[in-house]
Amino acid sequence: MQSDPTLRLRVFDLNCWAIRYLSKRRQERVRLIGDMLHREDFDLVLLQEVWSEQDYSDLKVKLGGCYPFSHYFRSGVIGSGLCVFSRFPILDTLLYQYSLNGYPYMLQHGDWFCGKSVGLVIIKISGIIFNVYVTHLHAEYCREKDAYLPHRLVQAWELAQFIRHTSKAADVVLLGGDLNMHPEDVGIRLLRGWTGLQDAFAEATHFEGCEDGCTLVPNNCFTDKSELLPFPLGIRIDYILYKAISSFMVKCEELKTTTGAAPGMDIPFSDHEAVMATLHIQRQAQATGTTLGTAEPMLADVVTEAQTEVGMGLRAAQQQRYSSGRMAVLALLLLLLQATAALGALVGLDAGQPFPKLSFCLLGFLAIGILVLATGLHLFHTMEVKMLHGTEEQMRMVLRTLQERPSDG
Amino acid sequence: MQSDPTLRLRVFDLNCWAIRYLSKRRQERVRLIGDMLHREDFDLVLLQEVWSEQDYSDLKVKLGGCYPFSHYFRSGVIGSGLCVFSRFPILDTLLYQYSLNGYPYMLQHGDWFCGKSVGLVIIKISGIIFNVYVTHLHAEYCREKDAYLPHRLVQAWELAQFIRHTSKAADVVLLGGDLNMHPEDVGIRLLRGWTGLQDAFAEATHFEGCEDGCTLVPNNCFTDKSELLPFPLGIRIDYILYKAISSFMVKCEELKTTTGAAPGMDIPFSDHEAVMATLHIQRQAQATGTTLGTAEPMLADVVTEAQTEVGMGLRAAQQQRYSSGRMAVLALLLLLLQATAALGALVGLDAGQPFPKLSFCLLGFLAIGILVLATGLHLFHTMEVKMLHGTEEQMRMVLRTLQERPSDG
Repeated sequence: MQSDPTLRLRVFDLNCWAIRYLSKRRQERVRLIGDMLHREDFDLVLLQEVWSEQDYSDLKVKLGGCYPFSHYFRSGVIGSGLCVFSRFPILDTLLYQYSLNGYPYMLQHGDWFCGKSVGLVIIKISGIIFNVYVTHLHAEYCREKDAYLPHRLVQAWELAQFIRHTSKAADVVLLGGDLNMHPEDVGIRLLRGWTGLQDAFAEATHFEGCEDGCTLVPNNCFTDKSELLPFPLGIRIDYILYKAISSFMVKCEELKTTTGAAPGMDIPFSDHEAVMATLHIQRQAQATGTTLGTAEPMLADVVTEAQTEVGMGLRAAQQQRYSSGRMAVLALLLLLLQATAALGALVGLDAGQPFPKLSFCLLGFLAIGILVLATGLHLFHTMEVKMLHGTEEQMRMVLRTLQERPSDG
Repeated sequence: MQSDPTLRLRVFDLNCWAIRYLSKRRQERVRLIGDMLHREDFDLVLLQEVWSEQDYSDLKVKLGGCYPFSHYFRSGVIGSGLCVFSRFPILDTLLYQYSLNGYPYMLQHGDWFCGKSVGLVIIKISGIIFNVYVTHLHAEYCREKDAYLPHRLVQAWELAQFIRHTSKAADVVLLGGDLNMHPEDVGIRLLRGWTGLQDAFAEATHFEGCEDGCTLVPNNCFTDKSELLPFPLGIRIDYILYKAISSFMVKCEELKTTTGAAPGMDIPFSDHEAVMATLHIQRQAQATGTTLGTAEPMLADVVTEAQTEVGMGLRAAQQQRYSSGRMAVLALLLLLLQATAALGALVGLDAGQPFPKLSFCLLGFLAIGILVLATGLHLFHTMEVKMLHGTEEQMRMVLRTLQERPSDG
């Protein structure tokens, strides 16, 4: 078995920043991305933020020759933005939409409308089953006071759980995407620890690209320089992660990133840098048991850390649920009061009219508006509380199992 | 290997109809259910519509002795209502919330608020891995003109996909729940055909209970008799389904249903009858390959039938998206017109005031109200279109694969 030939797989990952009407020079960049993918001839292409189905269709037409198989994942109002192009047949697909993904009323952020998800495509190459996952987690808008951290942690947890549960028959697991987390963030440690996925950047024999493998760099003309001020080299938030299950071994031979402007052009492909990995996959003589990525006592620490953050998010969500519920009750009381006053005026209990009609009506409409909005908010935060609570409990269950198991770390 | 002892597993499934404030004699029935479960000592209990966490906690306390392991699945505004009690340790859990589940504005139906889902618990008994799924699909309110059929079909499809993708390392798969589909409905045939699950009622060596295995019967004092008029025996919509993967064999030795009033009581446990299966699980000498439940040409017919229904749902959703979008645009136009008129009056362009102030304000508020509601509806139906479209495309992909594969049916 040791003499089995090595399979060489070239994987491309990019957050394309292709938001209709909002992303600068979108069509030109999508064309450039298509040209480059056509030229470079990767085996597997994982894209995020392809939010226009027309862009996907255009890419599909252009790349049909070299990547005959592709899949676009639909979800949310705008779409998940996730798609995959492959040189090898896609056998099956599955989409898992994260249960929490920001707030619908945070229109300026808009993550909620994208229905952020993880997409799975199953591919078989030379008899080896690849479970390929592509995802995009909730953005981080303010690192110092990150209101979305609990949601992103729930997503990282659901991503890990989804990978664990769906990859049991896979030989090789690949995950590519914009995780919106720095390499040392608790979410990444949780994801890697709980799935056993390895970071292609950290494992690569050769590396070429932006320093420290950064994928959001000041050098890129589309990035917001002020956001990157605390990180003069940039940040690394786009990843290719992998692991072999059963009797296979995966090695990252080479990792590259783009470095700002596309070759021969004045603009980069996107505001993110692309990540390109060359993986070597070989059958092993002896099957290694499935292992977790992190020694168990350390994993327990990571899960505890994540659970604490989710717990803090839970308390904040409970507070918001309470406030919106109280607001709805107050609006309802005001309406009842007005109804009583109006009724009183009708049956002639009041001598004079306490309010002019117009103000009375305006107040009534205001109360109805607040009642509807506050009720909607209350329902939304009730769902948020349910999901945070459920995740916290799942984590607690895992911790119990980790602590009960005889340590082999 | 043939001499391996047979594992006998007793499974209980019930839609408990335990909706706070709405279900009749809820607390009394939950107590009765707890007493019976305690007395009967099943191995695995799958419950639906346990919508109050307090009811779950009470059951957990009462059943702690005989079912030391349990899990409650949280989702949606009200909760998924799903929970599992087990005599054996639960190793892991996962929740998948269906992407479509009715409409939030259908308050009288309320399915949307439950966040209907499928819950998975993994259990190991005598070294055999059981993937146990519990679910509850969207209700059918009018069989003749079932507006929710496309949503229920999307749920059946997602359920089948979820089971297929997560059960690859399982030895035995069990599914229990209220599927809200009659045995010959396209959704059940799709689910069974695409997963290979077998119907415990159809396979049982011995059967005892309501005629035809019905689980919603006129004999039950809580059922709505008028709804069951076309079905004098009742209908069968609650199931225990199973299959063995790899080298195991499962047989249903006995299937029972309750038959109205609980023994010695004047009321039944619920408006549904419980389903109780005794399964025999044995290791086989020779591993049988994983097979689909239905011969492939027949499966292709079922998928085509489902795809047609989903396609019809897609067109209806597109129509609703269009109507709500048009309504939002009209409301916006009315508001703009009013703004122009008000501005005109302010700068003195109009000699007299065309409207009395009050009517003008009322009209403005009406327009704002319609704009907000229509925009909300438009966003919702856009998501609906995305998910129906995605499912239709997945089905088309499966059909292509089925048709390309050399037939072995």
